[in-house]
Amino acid sequence: MRIAVFRKAHFNAAHRLHIKDWSDEKNEKVFGVCSNRYYHGHNYELEVKVIGEVDPITGMVIDLKVLKDIIEEKIEKRFDHRNLNEEIEEFKNLNPTTENLCFVIWKILRATLDEKFELFVRLYETPRNYVEYPA
Amino acid sequence: MRIAVFRKAHFNAAHRLHIKDWSDEKNEKVFGVCSNRYYHGHNYELEVKVIGEVDPITGMVIDLKVLKDIIEEKIEKRFDHRNLNEEIEEFKNLNPTTENLCFVIWKILRATLDEKFELFVRLYETPRNYVEYPA
Amino acid sequence: MRIAVFRKAHFNAAHRLHIKDWSDEKNEKVFGVCSNRYYHGHNYELEVKVIGEVDPITGMVIDLKVLKDIIEEKIEKRFDHRNLNEEIEEFKNLNPTTENLCFVIWKILRATLDEKFELFVRLYETPRNYVEYPA
Amino acid sequence: MRIAVFRKAHFNAAHRLHIKDWSDEKNEKVFGVCSNRYYHGHNYELEVKVIGEVDPITGMVIDLKVLKDIIEEKIEKRFDHRNLNEEIEEFKNLNPTTENLCFVIWKILRATLDEKFELFVRLYETPRNYVEYPA
Amino acid sequence: MRIAVFRKAHFNAAHRLHIKDWSDEKNEKVFGVCSNRYYHGHNYELEVKVIGEVDPITGMVIDLKVLKDIIEEKIEKRFDHRNLNEEIEEFKNLNPTTENLCFVIWKILRATLDEKFELFVRLYETPRNYVEYPA
Amino acid sequence: MRIAVFRKAHFNAAHRLHIKDWSDEKNEKVFGVCSNRYYHGHNYELEVKVIGEVDPITGMVIDLKVLKDIIEEKIEKRFDHRNLNEEIEEFKNLNPTTENLCFVIWKILRATLDEKFELFVRLYETPRNYVEYPA
Repeated sequence: MRIAVFRKAHFNAAHRLHIKDWSDEKNEKVFGVCSNRYYHGHNYELEVKVIGEVDPITGMVIDLKVLKDIIEEKIEKRFDHRNLNEEIEEFKNLNPTTENLCFVIWKILRATLDEKFELFVRLYETPRNYVEYPA
Repeated sequence: MRIAVFRKAHFNAAHRLHIKDWSDEKNEKVFGVCSNRYYHGHNYELEVKVIGEVDPITGMVIDLKVLKDIIEEKIEKRFDHRNLNEEIEEFKNLNPTTENLCFVIWKILRATLDEKFELFVRLYETPRNYVEYPA
Repeated sequence: MRIAVFRKAHFNAAHRLHIKDWSDEKNEKVFGVCSNRYYHGHNYELEVKVIGEVDPITGMVIDLKVLKDIIEEKIEKRFDHRNLNEEIEEFKNLNPTTENLCFVIWKILRATLDEKFELFVRLYETPRNYVEYPA
Repeated sequence: MRIAVFRKAHFNAAHRLHIKDWSDEKNEKVFGVCSNRYYHGHNYELEVKVIGEVDPITGMVIDLKVLKDIIEEKIEKRFDHRNLNEEIEEFKNLNPTTENLCFVIWKILRATLDEKFELFVRLYETPRNYVEYPA
Repeated sequence: MRIAVFRKAHFNAAHRLHIKDWSDEKNEKVFGVCSNRYYHGHNYELEVKVIGEVDPITGMVIDLKVLKDIIEEKIEKRFDHRNLNEEIEEFKNLNPTTENLCFVIWKILRATLDEKFELFVRLYETPRNYVEYPA
Repeated sequence: MRIAVFRKAHFNAAHRLHIKDWSDEKNEKVFGVCSNRYYHGHNYELEVKVIGEVDPITGMVIDLKVLKDIIEEKIEKRFDHRNLNEEIEEFKNLNPTTENLCFVIWKILRATLDEKFELFVRLYETPRNYVEYPA
């Protein structure tokens, strides 16, 4: 019996949309106020979905305390109260859009979780704008 | 890399469930209070999901400001503060159920969005009743 | 020991902002799309707050099942799936703004609840617009 | 035209994670505070998703009042204000994890709903922990 | 400058409404399913409101991390995953209604917080039923 | 008849807790990760409460479209996608805590609104941390 389990988490971070190879004018033209050089920020809400077989004894796909601890250790501790552009290695040469941040988080969790699990990540930048990977 | 991006919007409208070919008695029997001839109304919440390739330069599937503007122009301006039965062309001979309204919105957005994008629409009539197309 | 207890309820209704003594032009000028003659509608969310002494035996201010039944009987059954302008006696000559609707609901509940209780009503027209009486 | 319709419901129940074949020590080691012998409890939120063809006359997949009544009769009446371990037949020899409870609910609804409908159940144990079947 | 600061927390617990001096029949008659002898449970949501002077240097009424730690230590650790009737000293002879639980929490926090602060506690038993002390 | 009307708004901003007269060590000791020199950020949610007399003709305390426009013009345009420490005049020598930001917003709105209205501002830094002025 395959089932999906979900765990929510959150972190607060600063960022700006900015492509280093572009001029300031082009960044501002394409990204508008989102490219403000002094940054702005968000309360990111994260939804991690793990699909797997239910263990017939324990009745669980994965211990949610274990999943919670993985998310805290690998994601929240790393991104919370950080500036994505300035302090997160993956964004040194990558624009920190919600799409890219979602994919970066997915890769980190994918490398941590057992291969037997399918993994999906949904990331809310605001309650009205969010993304999901894989689609 | 394919990813899904979501944008939420909302509009307030009046409607009644009513099939013109049916007698008032049959409408009331099938649809109950929802067929009240003086109408009732809802705060409709709309979730638009667009799946596409992430642009490797900008890191975006679609500029969410562009998507927001499309939804405002094509959906919110057209349906907000309207009576679906009386004022919306598509419902002149179509029962304005949440299912039909969701499909009408999907068709409008589908005709506007580039074909390279997949499109899904979720429509909340109330926080407890909602539909999604395609399923 | 005085304590406040809250109970939430909801109903869906149609309305338009419209003052009968005014011309259509003046109604439209003052109330804009809210005065649309074909109506629009809302999912109204209602929060009823009752303050009273905690009964030292039962540990309750008021049985919340009783309060729930009063709200259902006096408010939800009367307003749900109705057109406020056309079907609700109190709005025959009263503009159905959220302020007036909140006060009408407060009066109905005030007449039903024991005088020993203080009563406050908060009414959400949308998640972003709401009122509270008494202030 | 196939579309998905959703209906939300809720119930409050007590439970503990506990496997009868295991010692108390093993239960506590694996499930921690969730295995507390005096139980704890949750406000379970239930989301039922039904996929089917939209009836071309009524414009509905299924009458949501009918779906609401099925959920009330088969799920809410049966689980609300109950102790899952002590009072629910299905958990006499089954650990009442969210995964197992979700599957039990799915089976009950599957046996009630017409075969022409696809059925999915999402169950929230808390706003941060939830599961979905089928995945 | 006096300002109010709020902090939210939550815990999951089992309980039943039950007065020891009453017969089972009377308990069931007055409290209905809430008196089920096998218990039921809730995800309690707690809102703590502290009013005080803003420190002119730090710009804070109280360090919210300190307030968060107090709530965790004194409330969440004590009530989470517990049976209020069976395991919480204060309810040995007190009916664990939301009113009484709110007051018990207020007393614990009041004894911990500096006297210079005003304190209010709001406790949600469900999203639709909640109480606040003092009123 | 006095009644309270509420309007919600939101903006996204970056900030850090930082007192210029203090050393970096002291700032970090007192404010922890919140003092990160590269900033972090939030989706601020704003609730504006205006108390006044209901106009006996229009049935409104204040036209909510007018209130919405004031908040957009004076608050959202000024704070959205900004860095509070670097770009907002009022925080050149003031720590941008939620308390101080709430008071700054209250002062701006107070100077704009007619004196006949009472004004209260609630500001959410996160869904779990928020403040209200006046208390």
